[in-house]
Amino acid sequence: MHALTAPLPFAPLGLSLDEVRENRILNLWSAILSRHPDQENGIHESDAELLPLPGSDQLLAVTVDTVAEEIALGFYSTPETIGWMAVTSSLSDLAAVGAAPLGLLIAAILPDGGEVAGDFQARLAAGIEAACRDAGTHILGGDTNRGDACVMTSCAVGLVPRSGVIRRVGCRAGERVYATGPLGAGAAAAARGLLGLGEALWREEDYRPRARLREAMLLRGLATSAMDTSDGLVATLDQLARLNRVAMCITEPAERLLDPRVDALRRRLGLSPFPFLAAEHGEFELVFTLRPEDEGLLLHRAAEIGWEPLLLGHTAPGGGLLLGKHEIDGARIRNLVDECGGDPRRYLELLLAADPSNHPTRGG
Amino acid sequence: MHALTAPLPFAPLGLSLDEVRENRILNLWSAILSRHPDQENGIHESDAELLPLPGSDQLLAVTVDTVAEEIALGFYSTPETIGWMAVTSSLSDLAAVGAAPLGLLIAAILPDGGEVAGDFQARLAAGIEAACRDAGTHILGGDTNRGDACVMTSCAVGLVPRSGVIRRVGCRAGERVYATGPLGAGAAAAARGLLGLGEALWREEDYRPRARLREAMLLRGLATSAMDTSDGLVATLDQLARLNRVAMCITEPAERLLDPRVDALRRRLGLSPFPFLAAEHGEFELVFTLRPEDEGLLLHRAAEIGWEPLLLGHTAPGGGLLLGKHEIDGARIRNLVDECGGDPRRYLELLLAADPSNHPTRGG
Repeated sequence: MHALTAPLPFAPLGLSLDEVRENRILNLWSAILSRHPDQENGIHESDAELLPLPGSDQLLAVTVDTVAEEIALGFYSTPETIGWMAVTSSLSDLAAVGAAPLGLLIAAILPDGGEVAGDFQARLAAGIEAACRDAGTHILGGDTNRGDACVMTSCAVGLVPRSGVIRRVGCRAGERVYATGPLGAGAAAAARGLLGLGEALWREEDYRPRARLREAMLLRGLATSAMDTSDGLVATLDQLARLNRVAMCITEPAERLLDPRVDALRRRLGLSPFPFLAAEHGEFELVFTLRPEDEGLLLHRAAEIGWEPLLLGHTAPGGGLLLGKHEIDGARIRNLVDECGGDPRRYLELLLAADPSNHPTRGG
Repeated sequence: MHALTAPLPFAPLGLSLDEVRENRILNLWSAILSRHPDQENGIHESDAELLPLPGSDQLLAVTVDTVAEEIALGFYSTPETIGWMAVTSSLSDLAAVGAAPLGLLIAAILPDGGEVAGDFQARLAAGIEAACRDAGTHILGGDTNRGDACVMTSCAVGLVPRSGVIRRVGCRAGERVYATGPLGAGAAAAARGLLGLGEALWREEDYRPRARLREAMLLRGLATSAMDTSDGLVATLDQLARLNRVAMCITEPAERLLDPRVDALRRRLGLSPFPFLAAEHGEFELVFTLRPEDEGLLLHRAAEIGWEPLLLGHTAPGGGLLLGKHEIDGARIRNLVDECGGDPRRYLELLLAADPSNHPTRGG
């Protein structure tokens, strides 16, 4: 098991993690911070951090996530949405490693405002409680501070048997690629906030993603890799391709990957599926891989709980990301937020311009 | 043990937790959030949250702290200080429950700024690493986001044997009150930031509090209550008095409680010790109580590691807080931040005006 805690042997060939700004930032930090000698995951290797517990065959899984830009950009405008998402974002990281939650901590920065603030806090807490109840877990404690804007940070702790841990690394060429459910609702929620879509097209309450904790239990011992789509499908596939040094080939038609509500929305807006799969605000599904011979067992287990895993495609030797016949420059897509200088309108323009279905086929 | 997880039976008489705004906020949240059925601490009852681990006699201790206002107000101006304090603030909560750290997570909101941001992040990481090394622990992972201002949230996880847990509740009248070390450096650091004190008076690097983890190990089984002084001595004593329904009588002369560097500073500024003990920015010592018959054992254990616990005074029947002969209105002091409407100059004025050594003796 401990081989996984060593640094990944990045070969000079292939797609480098460092092509993506987010990975560069993490590498900058990890060059300075010394690693816990017992930590069971290397940098980039899992959605949650994994530590052995003395005298136990369970690993402690811990993760932290901040919801800030999503609030500032108006993707989450009601306190109920903000609370729900603060909980879901960190629980989803636990799901991605196969862990069952023990509970969460919440650190909230709350805008000033006297009595209004009290009502805001009560609605925020109601959103938090709703997401916790839905996931069967609890808030253990937290910290509140005052500030100019609302920022929510959640920390989730959980347990996973050592034999059941799921990491981002571990898949090979020739495996199946699945998602836990249909995609695109995160992009739709972002579009609602940015473009001010009317209620008839998309309501804020249409976006209430659930951390895939129950499904993840069934993936223990089956998934060879997994990662949540908190940053959208393209970012997730791109990172898994880089980490595992495989190509991710999405062979199912893109329309079929979309949540039906999202497919209806994109048709009314006259858009292709691409921006809904590529935008950097995801739907908190899990993308996972498994060996073809395990597919029957997956579908059997899934049927027992009424879950329909969504086949995306397969892995192949090499690297990179194929959507149908189109080669996708994952690093470019993932760096668009920087390229646009934080201007969301410019981001949308660049994202739509990067849609390969608008261009002659380059690869494949 | 489980009696402690039930709500505290607040009698209608005595000092209510609700007199303090911070307690009211926490009570507002806890009225909405459902409690974890297995949680080993009630609301307000400990600095870190405590959960049983299946098949273990160890409790998991988890805590989260945000450093935001201290940065915005200029108390922490260098990235090294910010990083150090982000780590220390949550480790100090682990110390207060007697836990040994497993590691930390850091969520950072970083100001934009291209290459400058890279240097800022490297120095921030260096401050984090320095505090972790000093405490013998590690950063397990984290999350970075962009924002207008730097905000750091740290989450610490640790373990404590069930028999060694220390809580805020448990002391009775007639016990000794101690601090782990001299006080006032937090107030001095805040004064430096607010008043722009020159380097000759107080340097930012003079404030590098250490979470009292090593000392807390020796308090397991001895301390009948403990709480860290992250909000200053007066707030800590006031909260312990309210929670335990005792009076906290500080009988040692106030000058003797001050860090010698702080005592020199306050003499040069012509100030009494009071504002350095009452300001709501503390020094991350632990205040703890113990039975008089255990004092010998404490001092014996302490001497073995070269630690000198600082006697403050004793507990007495009743409630409230006495500094020498002066009765202190702890709720008033703790609510000053709100009374001043967030204006730090006004806060200082109100704090100095509340100094009982400037007034005829009211109580005692």
